[in-house]
Amino acid sequence: MKYPNANTIGVPFPFRNGKANSGGRVHGIDRWLLRKFLQTIGEPSMRVVLWDGTESVKDNSTSSVGMVIRDRATLWRLLTNPLLHFGDDYSAGRIEIEGGLVAFMETVYRAMSQKTRSGRGCPKAAYRRNQPNMNSLTGSRRNIHHHYDIGNDFYQLWLDQEMLYTCAYFPDPAASLEDAQIAKMDLVCRKLRLNAGQTVVEAGCGWGALARYMARHYGVKVRAFNISGEQIAYAHKRAKAEGLEGQVEYVEDDYRNISGQYDAFVSVGMLEHVGPDHYRELGNIVERSLKERGLGLIHTIGQSRAEPMSPWLLQRIFPGSYPPTLREMMELFEPWGFSVLDVENLRLHYAKTLEHWLERFEVHKERITAMFDECFVRAWRLYLSGAIANFNLGNLQLFQVVFTRHGNNLIPWTRSHLFVPPDA
Amino acid sequence: MKYPNANTIGVPFPFRNGKANSGGRVHGIDRWLLRKFLQTIGEPSMRVVLWDGTESVKDNSTSSVGMVIRDRATLWRLLTNPLLHFGDDYSAGRIEIEGGLVAFMETVYRAMSQKTRSGRGCPKAAYRRNQPNMNSLTGSRRNIHHHYDIGNDFYQLWLDQEMLYTCAYFPDPAASLEDAQIAKMDLVCRKLRLNAGQTVVEAGCGWGALARYMARHYGVKVRAFNISGEQIAYAHKRAKAEGLEGQVEYVEDDYRNISGQYDAFVSVGMLEHVGPDHYRELGNIVERSLKERGLGLIHTIGQSRAEPMSPWLLQRIFPGSYPPTLREMMELFEPWGFSVLDVENLRLHYAKTLEHWLERFEVHKERITAMFDECFVRAWRLYLSGAIANFNLGNLQLFQVVFTRHGNNLIPWTRSHLFVPPDA
Repeated sequence: MKYPNANTIGVPFPFRNGKANSGGRVHGIDRWLLRKFLQTIGEPSMRVVLWDGTESVKDNSTSSVGMVIRDRATLWRLLTNPLLHFGDDYSAGRIEIEGGLVAFMETVYRAMSQKTRSGRGCPKAAYRRNQPNMNSLTGSRRNIHHHYDIGNDFYQLWLDQEMLYTCAYFPDPAASLEDAQIAKMDLVCRKLRLNAGQTVVEAGCGWGALARYMARHYGVKVRAFNISGEQIAYAHKRAKAEGLEGQVEYVEDDYRNISGQYDAFVSVGMLEHVGPDHYRELGNIVERSLKERGLGLIHTIGQSRAEPMSPWLLQRIFPGSYPPTLREMMELFEPWGFSVLDVENLRLHYAKTLEHWLERFEVHKERITAMFDECFVRAWRLYLSGAIANFNLGNLQLFQVVFTRHGNNLIPWTRSHLFVPPDA
Repeated sequence: MKYPNANTIGVPFPFRNGKANSGGRVHGIDRWLLRKFLQTIGEPSMRVVLWDGTESVKDNSTSSVGMVIRDRATLWRLLTNPLLHFGDDYSAGRIEIEGGLVAFMETVYRAMSQKTRSGRGCPKAAYRRNQPNMNSLTGSRRNIHHHYDIGNDFYQLWLDQEMLYTCAYFPDPAASLEDAQIAKMDLVCRKLRLNAGQTVVEAGCGWGALARYMARHYGVKVRAFNISGEQIAYAHKRAKAEGLEGQVEYVEDDYRNISGQYDAFVSVGMLEHVGPDHYRELGNIVERSLKERGLGLIHTIGQSRAEPMSPWLLQRIFPGSYPPTLREMMELFEPWGFSVLDVENLRLHYAKTLEHWLERFEVHKERITAMFDECFVRAWRLYLSGAIANFNLGNLQLFQVVFTRHGNNLIPWTRSHLFVPPDA
């Protein structure tokens, strides 16, 4: 297959390392621009080194993180759209980070959130401004293709062996990623109280691991939808190899085309891609797909208060995505009178999941550079590190929401079933 | 003490039983009015008997519930404001119910919700229209006095011995009310991860049981606020008798006057009385009262979709009350960036709690009649039965929400601590 390069993921600058064309000596205006830039991002406590070695350190700073800005043009760009250009220029190697990228991003995000607390404007407007394809049927397909169809063998290098690309559940923080992903799937099955012979529909199934797990361990039949062609092909092949063809059907189609009625509706890591303008529509799909006594589960990245996503992440990594607040999520449930039974927040589990991914990613960075290019590796390192920082700081949350119809009284009496070990 | 009679709880008609002044024979217009009334409430499947014995049964109805309307004036009133006048006329004995009041209310509510699904207008407007006292500092005091200051010895007849007047938690449906209330208090303590030496502030403490339980079993210091004078006096007396005076301080004051900073903020069954216009204000109180790494818990009756409360309940039983949807509750959390960690829905536990209360209430009905009058007994029977019906049908929910500040990483890693038995 043909891998995308920096250009196909959207980074507009060719990769260029070193100090060539740096713009010579630093002048007064450069120092002034740097001060302005640091003010814009809330004056984080860090060291900044400019292209000729000029250093700027915040008063009394004991921080060990810092950034090197390799040329004047980069400094100018940082002022016009700091988050977008920081991402692009870091990817292109015109910015280098000292003291660890996660620690650096935490320092910057912390400063930014103190500066801009509840003043960053309308997140929905920022979302619309920054996403090239709105989430229509064709827009969604383009958005999903951009991220998920860049090569199964790339994702195989750093995901667990079941290929789960969503937050894992670590019963113990020291659990392995493999065990934590299995524990996550089992937690989802227990929350849905699956029983042999039941039917499940899954909206956004990734590489199909959850559907196979449900079929194998809980004896249910699953129809799993996804608009990523590469993921569906992989999922189908694995189900066939594992003798689960009769129980699991993978459908390359949009969640809006789900038909039929099921005992359970499950969606793990899709809502982030649905977009706030479509929650009501998704709720309508759930309303028509869930049997009278069915249970539903939605697992999604979220926020504690509505803030716009980084334009860099929206444009380069996850076009069309938006992490909802719980209030925004209720647009899925309240118009149809769904009763929310359980919300669990697994924020720190996602930070840990991402740490595992980043560690494996770094182990394979030469191979990934050969598959794509160095700019791609740097962009993805930044995305994974920034996500760890955001989950650690609480800028991102991870909600698992269990719900059912209005008057369904066949609901779990307590949560004790969540703590029964599988096969017990 | 002087007990209120039907008049002081607001029922405007003197109690009048029997068929005197019933209006004589039923005419065509009476039958037409009855049909109109039944259409208004969604044509529930039930028998209706008018004052002269005329009977109306819905076609093919196999329902065992029915109502007897004792005079023409009652029938006319039912048409002008069905819920308000049903309550008042049932209380006054001009309406009798056959087949069980809970089953009857379930039949009526089911029919009404099918008729009016998402068409009952603005719940906030109905709330404002129907409540005599808005929840200002003095309005709240009047509202709370109306319900909670009608006699501790009355409540002692039918609550558990710790005097908890909120949803219990039945680890097993067969648990006793006493055990289930203790289990609820312990669940709340475990959700808050209380440790000896910590400080807790409680907003709306009822007769003070939770504060005493926390102090005794978890070794914390509690300041507990309530604007019901009778409840505070009782709570204080019990804490003194139990040697907990040094650990628990009961304050007769509004939640808006809470001062200081605490390791935990807890409120069980108060939010229903706060009113949707004051959630943000309450959130602000939490924001200033919670230490950097504190946990909060709000336990409240809620709804799956915003519907106005019954005007009868609002005017006669719970002035100023409103059960929020989760979306509405988020007004408490999102403006301050609180992170919601856990939501549990205990709806069916409240139905069971109410069944226990109603059963004990009926055991003591002669005594309660002597304390108040028969109209009072009938009004409270209707309130308790209607609440059971609403929790059974899912018109009411019970949310326990645990939250903390934005970036607090000292949060429970999993929920396994919720299933450790107390003192283990």
